[in-house]
Amino acid sequence: MQTLPGFRDFLPADCASRNYIFDTWRKVARGYGFVEWDGPVLEPTELYRKKSGPEIVDQLFNFVDKGEREVAMRPELTPTLARVVAANERGFKKPLKWFSIGQFFRYEKQQRGRLREHFQLNCDILGEAGPSADVELVALCVDVLRGFGLTEKDFVVRISDRGFWTEFLEQQQVPPENWQAILQAIDKSEREPREKTAVKLGPLADAVFAVFDGGGRSQRLDEVMAALRARGLGEFVEVDVQIVRGLAYYTGVVFEAFDRTGKLRAIAGGGRYDNLVQQLSEGAVSMPALGFAMGDVVLGELIKIVPGATEKMSGAVKAYGNLDAFIIIAKEERRLDALSIVQRLRESGMRVDYSFGAAKVPKQFQAGDEWPQIAMKDLRSGKQELVGQDELVSRVKALLSAEL
Amino acid sequence: MQTLPGFRDFLPADCASRNYIFDTWRKVARGYGFVEWDGPVLEPTELYRKKSGPEIVDQLFNFVDKGEREVAMRPELTPTLARVVAANERGFKKPLKWFSIGQFFRYEKQQRGRLREHFQLNCDILGEAGPSADVELVALCVDVLRGFGLTEKDFVVRISDRGFWTEFLEQQQVPPENWQAILQAIDKSEREPREKTAVKLGPLADAVFAVFDGGGRSQRLDEVMAALRARGLGEFVEVDVQIVRGLAYYTGVVFEAFDRTGKLRAIAGGGRYDNLVQQLSEGAVSMPALGFAMGDVVLGELIKIVPGATEKMSGAVKAYGNLDAFIIIAKEERRLDALSIVQRLRESGMRVDYSFGAAKVPKQFQAGDEWPQIAMKDLRSGKQELVGQDELVSRVKALLSAEL
Repeated sequence: MQTLPGFRDFLPADCASRNYIFDTWRKVARGYGFVEWDGPVLEPTELYRKKSGPEIVDQLFNFVDKGEREVAMRPELTPTLARVVAANERGFKKPLKWFSIGQFFRYEKQQRGRLREHFQLNCDILGEAGPSADVELVALCVDVLRGFGLTEKDFVVRISDRGFWTEFLEQQQVPPENWQAILQAIDKSEREPREKTAVKLGPLADAVFAVFDGGGRSQRLDEVMAALRARGLGEFVEVDVQIVRGLAYYTGVVFEAFDRTGKLRAIAGGGRYDNLVQQLSEGAVSMPALGFAMGDVVLGELIKIVPGATEKMSGAVKAYGNLDAFIIIAKEERRLDALSIVQRLRESGMRVDYSFGAAKVPKQFQAGDEWPQIAMKDLRSGKQELVGQDELVSRVKALLSAEL
Repeated sequence: MQTLPGFRDFLPADCASRNYIFDTWRKVARGYGFVEWDGPVLEPTELYRKKSGPEIVDQLFNFVDKGEREVAMRPELTPTLARVVAANERGFKKPLKWFSIGQFFRYEKQQRGRLREHFQLNCDILGEAGPSADVELVALCVDVLRGFGLTEKDFVVRISDRGFWTEFLEQQQVPPENWQAILQAIDKSEREPREKTAVKLGPLADAVFAVFDGGGRSQRLDEVMAALRARGLGEFVEVDVQIVRGLAYYTGVVFEAFDRTGKLRAIAGGGRYDNLVQQLSEGAVSMPALGFAMGDVVLGELIKIVPGATEKMSGAVKAYGNLDAFIIIAKEERRLDALSIVQRLRESGMRVDYSFGAAKVPKQFQAGDEWPQIAMKDLRSGKQELVGQDELVSRVKALLSAEL
């Protein structure tokens, strides 16, 4: 019996790494004043069709449930967010700063950095149209990555502005129905030879390449960059108008985080989607919005190739496994007494274990006849002493909090 | 667009309650030296069929995926555990003490305390056949519930022993192929009138009712109870041989936790399943095992009807929402300076927020012209003072750690 292709078991060491990633995501997002929420793992398939068109269904784990409902395991969080916010928007003070940590599913060909499930941090700001929100979101993306011990030498967030390109397309008098195709050609241009992009761009090719070579900017980008520099994050970000993100629903500032080596897929990506809540709520609620998502798989790969980040993660994983105390039951007839000691130490908040069966007392531990006292050995210093039962909890606590 | 029936959205307040439950589960299980693991949310349907028989499929969210695989959203964790342990058992020192927190799915009629998804804490001990492991597991179940501020007045863990009943059935010369039907009749007897149970039990009825009325015991139950009393948990547990748990695979001590009012469904349940790993691994690995599961839905209901537990949860939820500092940008031209202050406070580990747009300075806050100093107000004491930028982080930290 095997795990399904593209799905992972999390053995204790893997689970500790996963918890470290979740804890870091949560800690930094909370530090930014974001609050956590979550939606269902299973949603009506229609929710995704409505946002992304019927083709999306080819990439879903979808089925008809026993009540004849078309359902899908969630491939992303944004449609759920739009549904939840549209249904509850009167109950919340704007702007909303919401984050979520959850699992997502796609029926896709497996590749490096892409499984059929992954965990994602989603961070969204709703109800704020001004550039302050773009700045806050990009800064959060940077600080989440810094939270893993990654530095400006390891990653960069490339920032662009869809508004820059729509203005350009207007100036070039491209009819709006052709915009999405042009934007997708620009989005793909970094991964393709220029000749191929030129074919897709047609008569626009020269003008677009001139922008690529000269660099593009917009007032909003200038404002966002100035604010990020004021926050001390200038080294982590750069303007790159070649980033437009493929999805049709982005409307303003968009960004993607990449490793500096360029070997990995994007670590995170997001941007403004000011019209999506309105579209998904069928006009019921209109709300400017922006967000980004960061998955655990590419992030995990990056952590593994950056020594400082690897070390930070290993330290956290190791600390997660540490016991505060291990009780050796030197004489089996003292087991019930030992259990009461174990219980007391645990109730004081310590992580304590002991052996279920009769255990040989390790040679380096001189013990056996001290009851009703207890032999306490500090495994770091090797110092051993006799302690009374009633002072044991406080003595162990003092020992644990003492620096060596 | 609606949430599917039996599925929940977790708005921020709900998510904070959920996190409180997860954090408490995790903290107590880790305190017991258990390590966390997890399996996939989607598994081959065969895994569940093999353990529970073909009928289980009627209660699953199962489907055929795009690669023609029969798959199911996991209804429980034990089959995955058996698979993972059988595949990796050489890599681990026995006994294993493993816990997991995850979501599970059943296509069932919705009732109070039963949705189509819920979160579960699963705790299992593998590789230990002796009663010490039963004691440790029951104690953990008790201490997890105590972790929520629940007391012996609020819940009780009823403990039984399948071995007691199989010995009884042997004495009564009941052929083994009839055992499961008898055990299920005993399991249901508490929720049925005696007449109905009597019909199911047939000629055994009088002997079984005599056990119910006289109380049953076994050597293993005596040992387990003595050890739980030694740990100071005697008030939280009682022997009740009417508990046998419906599932066929239990082999020894079994237990269920109930609220004292008897109004709710079981809060948790589990027991020994010494043959299951062998059965699911088709004989490849044999390992004694025991475990319990506790869901978030009934637990949440119990917390809500116990004032002390409600208060504990509310306190944790409220603390989760608290900010350490809120930055008021009194003059919009100072926004970039303010952002650098926000950044510095956040980088020191604080939870900090500010307003995206121009904010009116609240009347009770005398501020506006103090830059390059910063007005700092303690909202608990109402005390306001001017602070230099470089001392701000340490001053706010000192304020936060000071008792009022």
